[in-house]
Amino acid sequence: MATIIVPNHPDPHDDAEVLRKACEGWGTDEGGIIKVIGHRNAGQRKMIKEAYQSKYNEDLIRRFEKELSGDFERAVYRWMLEPFDRDAVLCHVSLKEKKADFRTIIELSCIPHADEVLQMKRAYYARYNCSLEEDVASHFTGEMRMLMLLLVSVHRFESDITDVKLAEKEAEILHDCIKKKEFKHEEMIRIVTTRNKTQLIATFYRFKNAYNTPVTKSLAVDKDDNFVAALQTAIKCIKSPQKYLESVVSNAINKRGTDEDDLTRVVVTRAEKDLAQIKDLFHKKNGVKLEDAVAKEISGDYKKFILTLLGANCD
Amino acid sequence: MATIIVPNHPDPHDDAEVLRKACEGWGTDEGGIIKVIGHRNAGQRKMIKEAYQSKYNEDLIRRFEKELSGDFERAVYRWMLEPFDRDAVLCHVSLKEKKADFRTIIELSCIPHADEVLQMKRAYYARYNCSLEEDVASHFTGEMRMLMLLLVSVHRFESDITDVKLAEKEAEILHDCIKKKEFKHEEMIRIVTTRNKTQLIATFYRFKNAYNTPVTKSLAVDKDDNFVAALQTAIKCIKSPQKYLESVVSNAINKRGTDEDDLTRVVVTRAEKDLAQIKDLFHKKNGVKLEDAVAKEISGDYKKFILTLLGANCD
Repeated sequence: MATIIVPNHPDPHDDAEVLRKACEGWGTDEGGIIKVIGHRNAGQRKMIKEAYQSKYNEDLIRRFEKELSGDFERAVYRWMLEPFDRDAVLCHVSLKEKKADFRTIIELSCIPHADEVLQMKRAYYARYNCSLEEDVASHFTGEMRMLMLLLVSVHRFESDITDVKLAEKEAEILHDCIKKKEFKHEEMIRIVTTRNKTQLIATFYRFKNAYNTPVTKSLAVDKDDNFVAALQTAIKCIKSPQKYLESVVSNAINKRGTDEDDLTRVVVTRAEKDLAQIKDLFHKKNGVKLEDAVAKEISGDYKKFILTLLGANCD
Repeated sequence: MATIIVPNHPDPHDDAEVLRKACEGWGTDEGGIIKVIGHRNAGQRKMIKEAYQSKYNEDLIRRFEKELSGDFERAVYRWMLEPFDRDAVLCHVSLKEKKADFRTIIELSCIPHADEVLQMKRAYYARYNCSLEEDVASHFTGEMRMLMLLLVSVHRFESDITDVKLAEKEAEILHDCIKKKEFKHEEMIRIVTTRNKTQLIATFYRFKNAYNTPVTKSLAVDKDDNFVAALQTAIKCIKSPQKYLESVVSNAINKRGTDEDDLTRVVVTRAEKDLAQIKDLFHKKNGVKLEDAVAKEISGDYKKFILTLLGANCD
């Protein structure tokens, strides 16, 4: 479930006018901007951008970039981009600015549906004139390259059918590889990168039942190894995406010096999807509401904006 | 250019009736069947199948399977399937019946546009409830698995722009790997599987200019190695698909005992696309028309059908 609170049929032309006013004059009215864009879904934001462009012959996102700054600006920028385009930007930033931050790329390739990932890859190619695959291949080497390349390349079709025998067989293969500490074994890579999600979940379930430990835990023996961390991240994203994203948010705000990029990413990418479930998971795990925990860690317009997207009433 | 000769606006209901008559009674009228389906494009064949189904409550392809036999039946079956579905069947047959015949899979993954390959993969999944990637991964191991898996997985976006510096750099990488006989080097796999076709063609061109030999020739040192053969096939398919397909047809008819499957595949998959160019290449290379060469090697209704698809007038 989404967290943003959206009115029925807001007029994009009125919105464009309000935003223009908020940007004009001596000081920018950040509160006014949040009041509009923090309460509009992707389709509505697109219409606002179009109305703004045709009315003022100016790109709204560029105007925001001029008027705003810091984490607030970065969050607004990500929020205002078309969703697939935004995911493409997030992948690009992870590769180019964040020293090949594999976690973000895995998150954005393994959580959405295959058709959405393809749309993101189209947006990536349109924006950077280079495919995500080419960039991923250039930023990793060895087995890590193969794992990452296959995670972003293979089109996982959706299925409701589980092959129980196959799940048993492949849980055993995974277990054998892990037992022998052959984490980079090609069979591990094959199973995790090519099987559809329903089948993989059955395999992970079988693993836990047969060996009394979740596959992610049995992989945790070698924390400093990026390959193992990547494999573990992929498994978590496929197995329980909301749980994984909750952990990303938790880590982001519990870090000394909040990780605003991680927090922003999860909030903007999930606010129209399943952020309500992620909030619930956080609440259950920590005994405190996510909005309250977040409110303590960040400040200013950025805080106001993130809380708005989290569905907290801050108007 | 296509080779089949198609009349304007044939009536699918009339066609269905003619085909029904050809199938009924004591002996099947194969000539009558060829006269219709050998002169209809994919869209028209689809309408005939629909008209036949609604008129006679029977699947036309199944009926053909009952009435026809041998190479003729196999060719008609492949011709009557929807193109993406047919390519999916061809890949499946290559994996399951032909002991992982990698050449066909490479041909059908590297020659069509990425969007067409995706459609084929959708058809494969719908038909076999298992993705092409999963099946490919199960039929190969080691570097061959990685190469094949990436060839069928990576979405190569189309581009008109060539990065000359990159082509120079990557031609050098390819040359270094080949010189050291490191054919399975991950950089070879990366370049051939992830770069877009325009860029790769520039790289191969640069290779030839810089080292005075085409990359495919310099790879030919190790003919018995399936990996090298697969790499070479992929490069040929990307570099000059028609030239590659001409060689498939040439080999198919020059073999002792024609390879009807290879001949049929190229004819049915390209008759509506570029079979005319393939015929021209054959003629130039061999000084004899493809139709004439084919006519000597095969016989009966199969011959009549293949020649019809090749655009020879055999009515």
